[in-house]
Amino acid sequence: MFETITIVGVGLISGSFALILKDKGLVKHVIGVSRTESSIQKALELGIIDEALPLEEAVKKSDLVYVAIPVDATIPMMQRIMDLITDKQIVADAGSTKDALCQALAGHPMRKRFVATHPMWGTEYSGPEAAVREAFTGRTCVICEKEKSDPEAVATIEKVYRELGMRVTYMDAHSHDMHAAYVSHISHITSFALANTVLEKEKEDNAIFELAGGGFESTVRLAKSSPSMWLPIFKQNREHVLDVLNEHITQLRKFKSCIEKENYEYLRELMESANKINRIIH
Amino acid sequence: MFETITIVGVGLISGSFALILKDKGLVKHVIGVSRTESSIQKALELGIIDEALPLEEAVKKSDLVYVAIPVDATIPMMQRIMDLITDKQIVADAGSTKDALCQALAGHPMRKRFVATHPMWGTEYSGPEAAVREAFTGRTCVICEKEKSDPEAVATIEKVYRELGMRVTYMDAHSHDMHAAYVSHISHITSFALANTVLEKEKEDNAIFELAGGGFESTVRLAKSSPSMWLPIFKQNREHVLDVLNEHITQLRKFKSCIEKENYEYLRELMESANKINRIIH
Repeated sequence: MFETITIVGVGLISGSFALILKDKGLVKHVIGVSRTESSIQKALELGIIDEALPLEEAVKKSDLVYVAIPVDATIPMMQRIMDLITDKQIVADAGSTKDALCQALAGHPMRKRFVATHPMWGTEYSGPEAAVREAFTGRTCVICEKEKSDPEAVATIEKVYRELGMRVTYMDAHSHDMHAAYVSHISHITSFALANTVLEKEKEDNAIFELAGGGFESTVRLAKSSPSMWLPIFKQNREHVLDVLNEHITQLRKFKSCIEKENYEYLRELMESANKINRIIH
Repeated sequence: MFETITIVGVGLISGSFALILKDKGLVKHVIGVSRTESSIQKALELGIIDEALPLEEAVKKSDLVYVAIPVDATIPMMQRIMDLITDKQIVADAGSTKDALCQALAGHPMRKRFVATHPMWGTEYSGPEAAVREAFTGRTCVICEKEKSDPEAVATIEKVYRELGMRVTYMDAHSHDMHAAYVSHISHITSFALANTVLEKEKEDNAIFELAGGGFESTVRLAKSSPSMWLPIFKQNREHVLDVLNEHITQLRKFKSCIEKENYEYLRELMESANKINRIIH
């Protein structure tokens, strides 16, 4: 499918992307661009990239430039890349927010060579050593503002994600960011807050974690996520994140009020209503 | 180790317990006691129990009676069982709260034959079909009020849990309930509330779940837990659950306030502080 691709940022997402493309024979040569020397070294060792080059050289040689860096850094990086490409090349990003980026690139003369994507997969880990070949499979990838990209560029990117085992869906950037706040960003905030709740208690009682079981681990594991990645997401998606955070606090207050007032009938209703999530996750 | 044991309640915990004991050759014959005919049938089919008997007959034949039913039902059940046993038999429970039960049994003439235990393992599923042979391993089991049980009974129960691959730790019942609120009960409430938050949104936007990725699933999976099991836990552990729920809402409000006021420096600090959970869960 590709002769050469460049991944900008050499981490969990771009690393997994490159590994799978190589495994499936969809690319011959992968170039890595990163300011982090240790990530470059690790990615070379792990066979994620074949060489590391400065951005300009890398872009020049590539059929596809795939950007997966924190969403605040993505905007200026993408502007630089799109100043460098020809209309034979494709640029895509993998960021967790889409509205600010799409707006920033709206007027760029090469806008049509850019495909805005969000493969909805991740773990709490980062860096090339976190990259895995099982990434993406069975998940959904959102493509935003499809109509602003060349149909041929969209078709190529779609084909790649389908080869990765993803479902592809389309959305405007604003809707994407709202949805992402509900099904991803809020989960991270509740995990961060839950970790702080228990770590706070640990200050007076250092045996608290001796008992931490499976349920605790699964609800709190996202609290290990990188602030450098998540802070810019919360910042760019501020309005939607606030909406859902307010709603979540309201829902928690309902549980609190039931327990306080010993209204166990309503508490049971709240739990039964939550059980309906069964329909969605199996 | 045992000739015959009875499990009272034939579900996730007691089922896993019986399966592993059989696998390891620690028991020859397992009797099941349950009011739910379908659970009995399923447990017989799955080889979890060898026969089903009414409580009195079952207890009479058993070296150990192991009770794993909702914590509200545990108290009267345990009182009935302890009226039936001799001082050659052992009774243990597996409940998620310990204070109310220990208090209820404090004056019973056979108190010393009872060992209060909480193996800190579970999943969001229930029923005998949810029982697994990999349960318990690597987790912690709390034994409460050790000093009120016969040392020989405690030693036997400890040995069983160690054979299951558990670490055994001791705690007074009050401390146990406080700890459990922090590392288990609150995780369930946040999951229930998160499920309701997103299900609420779905009413106006039914595509919301198309995007649900791995992070969402792990934070929300406990929302599938059984209200019949969890309602009595929240009820019995009301004070501690309220304490930690209040603290958790306070922590969430800190995130909200940072995002509202665009105080991103403090937001980063909150996330970095949450990252310290790394020390605890790997």
